[in-house]
Amino acid sequence: MREPAPDEVLLRVASCGVCTSELDMWQGMADIEFPRFPGHEVSGVVERAGSQVEGLEPGDPVAAWVTGRGFAEYVAVRAEYCFPAGSVPLDLALAEPLACAVNAVELAAPALGDDVVVIGAGFMGNLVQKLVQLKNPRHVIVADTRPDALERAAQLGATRTVNVLSESIVDLVREATGGAGADVSFEVTGAQAALLTLGDVTRMSGKVAIVGYHQGGMRELPLAAWNWMAFQIVNAHFREIDTIMGGMRAGMRLLTSGRLALDDLVTHRYALEDVNEAFATAVAKPEGFVKATVTIGPSPPG
Amino acid sequence: MREPAPDEVLLRVASCGVCTSELDMWQGMADIEFPRFPGHEVSGVVERAGSQVEGLEPGDPVAAWVTGRGFAEYVAVRAEYCFPAGSVPLDLALAEPLACAVNAVELAAPALGDDVVVIGAGFMGNLVQKLVQLKNPRHVIVADTRPDALERAAQLGATRTVNVLSESIVDLVREATGGAGADVSFEVTGAQAALLTLGDVTRMSGKVAIVGYHQGGMRELPLAAWNWMAFQIVNAHFREIDTIMGGMRAGMRLLTSGRLALDDLVTHRYALEDVNEAFATAVAKPEGFVKATVTIGPSPPG
Amino acid sequence: MREPAPDEVLLRVASCGVCTSELDMWQGMADIEFPRFPGHEVSGVVERAGSQVEGLEPGDPVAAWVTGRGFAEYVAVRAEYCFPAGSVPLDLALAEPLACAVNAVELAAPALGDDVVVIGAGFMGNLVQKLVQLKNPRHVIVADTRPDALERAAQLGATRTVNVLSESIVDLVREATGGAGADVSFEVTGAQAALLTLGDVTRMSGKVAIVGYHQGGMRELPLAAWNWMAFQIVNAHFREIDTIMGGMRAGMRLLTSGRLALDDLVTHRYALEDVNEAFATAVAKPEGFVKATVTIGPSPPG
Amino acid sequence: MREPAPDEVLLRVASCGVCTSELDMWQGMADIEFPRFPGHEVSGVVERAGSQVEGLEPGDPVAAWVTGRGFAEYVAVRAEYCFPAGSVPLDLALAEPLACAVNAVELAAPALGDDVVVIGAGFMGNLVQKLVQLKNPRHVIVADTRPDALERAAQLGATRTVNVLSESIVDLVREATGGAGADVSFEVTGAQAALLTLGDVTRMSGKVAIVGYHQGGMRELPLAAWNWMAFQIVNAHFREIDTIMGGMRAGMRLLTSGRLALDDLVTHRYALEDVNEAFATAVAKPEGFVKATVTIGPSPPG
Repeated sequence: MREPAPDEVLLRVASCGVCTSELDMWQGMADIEFPRFPGHEVSGVVERAGSQVEGLEPGDPVAAWVTGRGFAEYVAVRAEYCFPAGSVPLDLALAEPLACAVNAVELAAPALGDDVVVIGAGFMGNLVQKLVQLKNPRHVIVADTRPDALERAAQLGATRTVNVLSESIVDLVREATGGAGADVSFEVTGAQAALLTLGDVTRMSGKVAIVGYHQGGMRELPLAAWNWMAFQIVNAHFREIDTIMGGMRAGMRLLTSGRLALDDLVTHRYALEDVNEAFATAVAKPEGFVKATVTIGPSPPG
Repeated sequence: MREPAPDEVLLRVASCGVCTSELDMWQGMADIEFPRFPGHEVSGVVERAGSQVEGLEPGDPVAAWVTGRGFAEYVAVRAEYCFPAGSVPLDLALAEPLACAVNAVELAAPALGDDVVVIGAGFMGNLVQKLVQLKNPRHVIVADTRPDALERAAQLGATRTVNVLSESIVDLVREATGGAGADVSFEVTGAQAALLTLGDVTRMSGKVAIVGYHQGGMRELPLAAWNWMAFQIVNAHFREIDTIMGGMRAGMRLLTSGRLALDDLVTHRYALEDVNEAFATAVAKPEGFVKATVTIGPSPPG
Repeated sequence: MREPAPDEVLLRVASCGVCTSELDMWQGMADIEFPRFPGHEVSGVVERAGSQVEGLEPGDPVAAWVTGRGFAEYVAVRAEYCFPAGSVPLDLALAEPLACAVNAVELAAPALGDDVVVIGAGFMGNLVQKLVQLKNPRHVIVADTRPDALERAAQLGATRTVNVLSESIVDLVREATGGAGADVSFEVTGAQAALLTLGDVTRMSGKVAIVGYHQGGMRELPLAAWNWMAFQIVNAHFREIDTIMGGMRAGMRLLTSGRLALDDLVTHRYALEDVNEAFATAVAKPEGFVKATVTIGPSPPG
Repeated sequence: MREPAPDEVLLRVASCGVCTSELDMWQGMADIEFPRFPGHEVSGVVERAGSQVEGLEPGDPVAAWVTGRGFAEYVAVRAEYCFPAGSVPLDLALAEPLACAVNAVELAAPALGDDVVVIGAGFMGNLVQKLVQLKNPRHVIVADTRPDALERAAQLGATRTVNVLSESIVDLVREATGGAGADVSFEVTGAQAALLTLGDVTRMSGKVAIVGYHQGGMRELPLAAWNWMAFQIVNAHFREIDTIMGGMRAGMRLLTSGRLALDDLVTHRYALEDVNEAFATAVAKPEGFVKATVTIGPSPPG
């Protein structure tokens, strides 16, 4: 536990989410150097503020952006990377994944009354679906292969869910959109098959948004068809820190104002000593699993 | 009642809204040639479809875009200017003003979690407010001078209302936004004073959207301050027919899908023989008045 | 030779370009129904104007947009699809391919001072290069495998050319851009290999523009790397007629004002009776070949 | 002369431009506190680099962004605010005003083949004109009241110049644009009259760009007409430091690559001891005056 620099705050960590991107690291499979320190979905309470910090005081609950070492009791973080959590329970103040989803949805920019398809109903797919719904399109059609995931998507507000193992998503989208296809389609799986589906369900000149992270070799795309259909291809990944911070700010504003809640997505909570079990569960993805967080310090009274 | 051209449908008019822009014409004050034929906020039921029309059949309820003569029993209109009304009551299918508001809001493009100010709580201000809320900003602060209008804005979902005659909107916005000012501010009055307020409540590099139609001479702007604040000025008017049709399509999708309803805005209904009273009321704007429509034919069973 | 409809003009065709997209049709290989009528890069002189046409008179030289049958002495075309050719030689008034290139470059939107890579130095690649240069980036690096094509690219104004068979384009771009990579990269080949190169030469968060038409099966993309680099993917194809017309208008304005000339790209001209030889040459692509046109009627005095 | 901080370089100043925005300060008329230290258009040679600075070494010529104190022999500046000047003469490396003009032109974004009007042919008007021309519109029509300024605008490449004291700019623009009006119009005067002219020369749905800084009270706008014409209003001022730096980077890339030169705009040069004369001349604006710079240290061999 080090002292905060003049522009930092020292946070007493309340909670840290388990991110899919760290599962490889935890399993020792990733092609990276060790030791590494996972944990970047952090929230906590300000313990001490650096000498130049304004607007943050000891006791303030915040969500924060860190690049690792989040599974710890304390973490020092730049004050400008902290966002007020208000009365949001800190284990639900998952600002970092929320920032990714906010930025993806803002870039794809579904308009009022658009028809939208979301392929993938895991945690990120659910976040994308929820944020798309906050923009009030007409139809929100969610596809997956897992019945429990589709049931959850329906409860979250999908106007239609599709199990692609047993139903024709192309027929369903065509029917819902009067034959035209979706205005915007999101792929949130990282899988080859979902990419192909994008092209089949999107209208001419519509947008196909790639949100999934496509690890594991080349992806095949029917580019002649995508050319012909004049799709706008949206690669929903960001590297500018300002963009990431903008997404966190927007996401935390949605949470603190009650426009959005994540209580229906955090399904598994673990104590810090059970962090290994948290990762194991995130790998196993048992039925009903969406998102695991590790509770570290006491949450302030909400 | 003429036959529809091959690409037209003949509509049996159900309802036509009374538009503020036509009040001058009705009062005989406008500097225009007579006779003129007001009425452009039309809905009705397809009576006959032209020979080349696809997708519309007798009996279909639609909202339509016409440039006048809407206060009539029948009107012929291009099929591509008709939008399905589904089970929306036809006196609430006000597609034309909705299109204006949809296009204004989409151009100003408030992002998820933004703070928004709407100055003006008449019919168009209410529409803008409702559509802004469908995009889920954080705060929606509505200003006006009429207590009944502000009460209605609150019921429509404003997070805060301001009577600018008795409260400081600058102080209120500053407080709500942590001192920064609004991300997007809409002026929906057409009045000089509201323009000046825009600059006082908007953050640096934020957007000031001019939706009101500024008739009656020059407007004064503190342009040095607007330069200095690097505002993005949004002139929310449109002339391209494709843009207008896009706004109607989106608006009717919102209505038919239940994402939006206008039953709280249509406050006065008149029979065709009372059209003069409808205009007189729209001019007088009695307390509680928002929008008048003239009911012409029978609405189909909703 | 039919009479023009009220909104059409009858053109006496002066010239029609031979388009790569029609070579399959000519060779009988394409999977399409016959008979087909190729020829869509048409210019000519107005012979007669329909009764409702304004602004076009007999004798006016124009470039026109038709969807086929351009290899003919006369063609009837909607007046709004005709653009004045001024004193531009009509065999150089290739408005349709120019429209494709204008729209591709405007969509990718290289900014003043950007570094740009163009992969492919055939006719469309040359057009893209010329239009990119009209936007005054800093570097314009052109890659191909044919020495004659690269020599032409250099003469057209490339700041650097790269023969990817013998030089490392990655090294060259890195050196030219201070290690960052190009701001915008265009693929104008339709080939798999060029797609892969895009990712290797573009900076983080830069734009990769796919202009080539990718026929012949799936394309493989290293999507994980493209995700990680947060590339903006630009699919430079268009289907809206308004967009195509906008590109033709802009392209013809560039030609008629002398900002752009195409005399260095039309390398082969044929008489109408030699149209088969024109197609054969376009298929064979002999050294020095860029673009073939078929001269049909007499060009007016330029 | 202080030592550079770890992320700074110490510059030996070569040249500093005299900016119009500082003339009030020099004349003691501005409503600001004294002492103030003018001079923000600085170029020089790196004397020493801070310990963490990479990519800049003693002897490197650069243009730099400072907020004042530029009329001095040495200035310390953050390394990331320095841009290589290559072989550009340092008294012509006016990166700061160039950044303003680059950002204004990129925001207004004239497209290939557009028709553009620039009102105001002083130094900033000339810069805007030159950058607009680098984007290759069709017509560039420049208006002013000073014959010498118009003659210079013509030499810089205007396709037409207009003395608004003796010619009708409305007629001229209408004629040049086939009756439509300009696609984009820039006001670069800061004067009331030029604002009114914008609306008279711009086509429906076109862009009106306000670049001039409108000090000295309210400005009057015919907003009803601007609403009706559906103009896109572009307020070409910026406050984000990243945007300013982006403009400097682009501007210096244009200069160092030879795409742009400013030798025709710097008309008056002064020694440091004559700085008062430099300001007096900038106030007096004698015929032929465009821009004054103060030469401080020796320029490196270009």
